[in-house]
Parts: sequence; C-alpha cells; structure tokens
Amino acid sequence: MSASTPPPPPQPLPLPRATVARLEAVLSIGAHLIPHPRKAASGGEDAFFANSDAGGVFAIADGVSGWAEKNVNPALFSRELMRNSSNFLNDEAVSHDPQILLMKAHAATSSIGSATVIIAMLEKTGTLKIASVGDCGLKVIRKGQVMFSISPQEHYFDCPYQISSEAEGQTYKDALVCSVNLMEGDIIVSGSDGLFDNIFDQEIVSIISESPSVDEAAKALAELARKHSVDVRFDSPYSMEARSRGFDVPWWKKLLGGKLIGGKMDDITVVVAQVKTVVVPEDEVQGGDTEEQKGNEQGAAAVVAYKMNDEEVA
Amino acid sequence: MSASTPPPPPQPLPLPRATVARLEAVLSIGAHLIPHPRKAASGGEDAFFANSDAGGVFAIADGVSGWAEKNVNPALFSRELMRNSSNFLNDEAVSHDPQILLMKAHAATSSIGSATVIIAMLEKTGTLKIASVGDCGLKVIRKGQVMFSISPQEHYFDCPYQISSEAEGQTYKDALVCSVNLMEGDIIVSGSDGLFDNIFDQEIVSIISESPSVDEAAKALAELARKHSVDVRFDSPYSMEARSRGFDVPWWKKLLGGKLIGGKMDDITVVVAQVKTVVVPEDEVQGGDTEEQKGNEQGAAAVVAYKMNDEEVA
Repeated sequence: MSASTPPPPPQPLPLPRATVARLEAVLSIGAHLIPHPRKAASGGEDAFFANSDAGGVFAIADGVSGWAEKNVNPALFSRELMRNSSNFLNDEAVSHDPQILLMKAHAATSSIGSATVIIAMLEKTGTLKIASVGDCGLKVIRKGQVMFSISPQEHYFDCPYQISSEAEGQTYKDALVCSVNLMEGDIIVSGSDGLFDNIFDQEIVSIISESPSVDEAAKALAELARKHSVDVRFDSPYSMEARSRGFDVPWWKKLLGGKLIGGKMDDITVVVAQVKTVVVPEDEVQGGDTEEQKGNEQGAAAVVAYKMNDEEVA
Repeated sequence: MSASTPPPPPQPLPLPRATVARLEAVLSIGAHLIPHPRKAASGGEDAFFANSDAGGVFAIADGVSGWAEKNVNPALFSRELMRNSSNFLNDEAVSHDPQILLMKAHAATSSIGSATVIIAMLEKTGTLKIASVGDCGLKVIRKGQVMFSISPQEHYFDCPYQISSEAEGQTYKDALVCSVNLMEGDIIVSGSDGLFDNIFDQEIVSIISESPSVDEAAKALAELARKHSVDVRFDSPYSMEARSRGFDVPWWKKLLGGKLIGGKMDDITVVVAQVKTVVVPEDEVQGGDTEEQKGNEQGAAAVVAYKMNDEEVA
C-alpha cells in the first residue's frame, strides 16, 4: 500500500523452492548372507537383491539343493532369478506388482534348477506388496511385537513350493500374494528358511530392539540363526515342527528320553528393512515417476548379491 | 451373399442376453456362536455380522469382559459396534475399505465398553481386505494348508488391543490393515480368540476338509473349540502360549510333574467363508455398482447376530 519502493529483500536462505510437500514411505534396507557351513567355498545357494528405487524393493531366492544330485549347481537358478528380478524392476508391465515381476524374472531365467522366492515392494503410501512362492519368510514388527507374518507353502514337510525350470514346478500363479499397510518405524524381517528354521519370534523381536541399524540387525539375526543351526542341542523351530509332523528319533531312543532336536544347517539370508517417511516437495512430486533413490540409507540403486569365497559379490 | 431371404431363424433358446461375461469372486459364509458356559443365559459378549453384498463382508467383535467389574454389560459395545458396521456398509465414504468402516462404526457407537474387532471384505477381483484390532483371528486355507494368517496385537498377555468408548483405547488408526489375493475354493476361517485359543491349525484344516458346507464347518469348529475349552487336561494353544510367556503352576506342582494346561473358557465365534466365482454378464457388469447379493449361499443381505437365551438373534 506504500507508494515508496520497498527496501531490497534480505539475502534468501537456501530454502527448498517448493512450498508444498508430502510424506512418502521409504525403506532403509540391511542384508546379511551366511552360506551353509559345508558350502562356504561355493557361496551357498541363496541369493538376494535390495533396491532403493521408488520406496524400496527386496527379494530373496533359495536354490533347492536337491539339484546337486543331478549334477546341477543349485545356486545358478536362484542367482539368475534375482539378477532378472532386478533387471525387470523398471519394466513398464511390472508396474510395481511383485507377482508380475516374478513372472517376468522367471520367464527370463534360463538356468536349470528351482528356488523358493519372495519379492516385497513398498509403495510410497506405505503399503508393502508381497509375492512369495515356498518357505522364505517375512514378518513385520511394530511396537515390539510381530504383527504380521506370512505362512510357508509346501507340498509336504521339507518340500516347499518352488519356482522351477521344469514344467512340474510352481509359477507366479501359485504365489501367495498379499499386502500390509506399514507405519513409520515398522521393521520388516525377511529371510530364507535358514533364518526362520533356526530362530524364534521372541529372539527376532529382542535382536531388533537391541540393534542400532538395519545392517547390524541383519548381521546379528543371521549370526544367531547360524549359531543355532549348528547346535545339536538347540530345540529349534525346525525340530519342533518336525516332531509335530510325526518325525522323531527311533522308539528305543524315545524310551531313553531322547527326541528329535537340534538346529538345521542351511544357507541363511536375512533382510531387515525399516519404514521411514521422507518429505517430498510437491513440485518434485509432480515429476515423481522419474524420481529415484529417495531416503534409502543403503544408497545403492540396486544390489544383487550372494556369497562367493566368503566375500559378498554385488 | 444369397439373394433369397434366409429361412426363419430357429426358436431362440433362453440364453442370457449378454454375449460377454466376466468372473467375479463372491463368498459363501457360514457362522456359529457358542457363548461362554457361564454366560449362556445372557448370550455372551461376542457379536458378528455377515453380508453377501458386493462379494461378501463379515465382521466379528469380542466384548472385553473386564467391563462387568464396572457394572457395564460388556455385550452392549460389541453388539452396537457390529450393528453400526452393518449400517455403514453402503456409506459412500466407506468405499469398500474395512478400516474406514471401522472408523465410522466406532464413531457411531455410544455404548460404554470395548471390544476386539475384525472386519473382512472380499473385492470382486478376489482380494480380501482386512482390518483388525486385537486378537480376533483370520486364516486362509488353500489346498489343505494354512497359507495366510493374521497375528494378534496385544499390550501384554491376555490384554489385546481394543476399540473402546474410552480415550485410552485403540482406534481404526491402530488396526492391522492387510489384504490377500484369494482363489476359487480358498476357505477363510475367522473367529474370536475363543476359537484360536482352543484349537490348533491342523485341527482346523482337518475339520474344513471333512465338512460338506461352510455352515457345518463353522458349527464343527465352534463345537470342537468349545469341547477343548472346558477340558482341563487339553494342552491348548492358550496354555502353551501362557507357558511360553512364563506363566505356569507353582514350583512345588512343577516338581510333581505338573504344568499349566487346559483349554480356555470363553465365548466362541466362528465364521467360515468359501471363495466362489460367479459369471456376470457384461451388460450387468456395466451397471455393476448397483448389483447386490450375487451368489452368496446364505442369501441374507445382512445378518447382525449374537446369542440370546441360546437362540440366535438377527
């Protein structure tokens, strides 16, 4: 309203240009893989990938070891499946659907073999979308309790559903497909059966509460599972499940008080992811489809990894 | 191409007018409620509703019995919450979202009390959407195995999250919200904790495989849970969980070989629903928003029910 010119404006602070912003959910992801003690030299048969694009995606594949009897390296299929999953991530047809990603990755995999597999994708709204074939596991921990958990699928004890190079195997159509709405601070713990066969929920919750980062949580979980897996006196989830299915020691051992007990030696892959919310300025949001790598502590755009000679290979 | 007129067409068969059709998923729903043995006269404190509209919806509420100590009938809150859930089902804002339905129903409930609650809605595409607060359970059985299961939420043992008339209670914001893609033939088993505290997964799978209908399955599950609930020698899921949390008999009883054991007497509500697909002609599909009551064997548009003097009240 003054007729005089205003004084020159003060030097602007480096504020973001956008005045409108919104919250988006993203994942901080940590992962750790410990091969089966007798497969350390070859790196074992698990593989995984983690990717910070568009909220966060991770996947785990556990190569079915029975292929070794047919002179097929069981690691080839799981590793190629994970590479292909990573490659198809930005494929238009996938459109943030883990089941379609599994279909595409499977179709592109030429190795002989089979694997259990889980793929999980966080949408910006906080919905975690999951497709799983077999007995890889995933649990969500909120406020110190397991509040979501997926069930394994199997043909019979120790024979899980599996994505396969052979026609008799399962496909993306057989996947358990589900989703869960996550909140800031929720922790996702996912892994191959080598994790969940050797560690109880209460141990997972306890380690998560004590770990300062997702990386350290993944490492601590893998190491405790590994410790239990080689402990012949540990009454593991695996041995409890086996007994409940009617497997046990011979009757004469039972008479002497014996029972089927012990951990289960296996490759152990652990992914731990924490849900965080990041503020995204609205003008960036409008161009949101091309955005990448927001807020993921790991920073890497994509990591396809497995163990080789005790070194993680990306 | 002939210049002569064609012969008169044969008398048309009574075919549907539409030539294009598509499949939609619907639920056949059966339910059964058995009150706590000491609450049979008042009908217990569980309530549920089942509705065949738009694919299928059901909900269960378990009134928290502690309110009786404050001279409040714990059944009033759970019953009103279920009536309100049923009333708001076609509210525009609900838009097939069980969490919004829970918000609306809770806001409209004026009774004093609190309840655990689960609401599940099947979309025509086959996606089951779930919102749950507390320890009502829901499992999906596919090909003879439990392939999906939700976890209870609780503050501490035997104190579940609960929707309440009081500000300290939980709200729709605290709900576990998740979804699972279902297939034709999948069976959903949902219930109050009185079911899942007294019956093991293998028993559920076995009863489902033997039952000729969802109604009979619901009845058989409720009756087996009821039988176990009053069996002081049955090592129930509830007593196993209690022991794993450190509850047990006094040390001197332990020395004599005793342990905390037995079923848990409670109201028992069971809902069993089976996924079916129905063929919907495309011309009906185009007006699909107004369609109702397709393919549900129960036929009733809405049933809000609880037990009163051993008679089911709708």
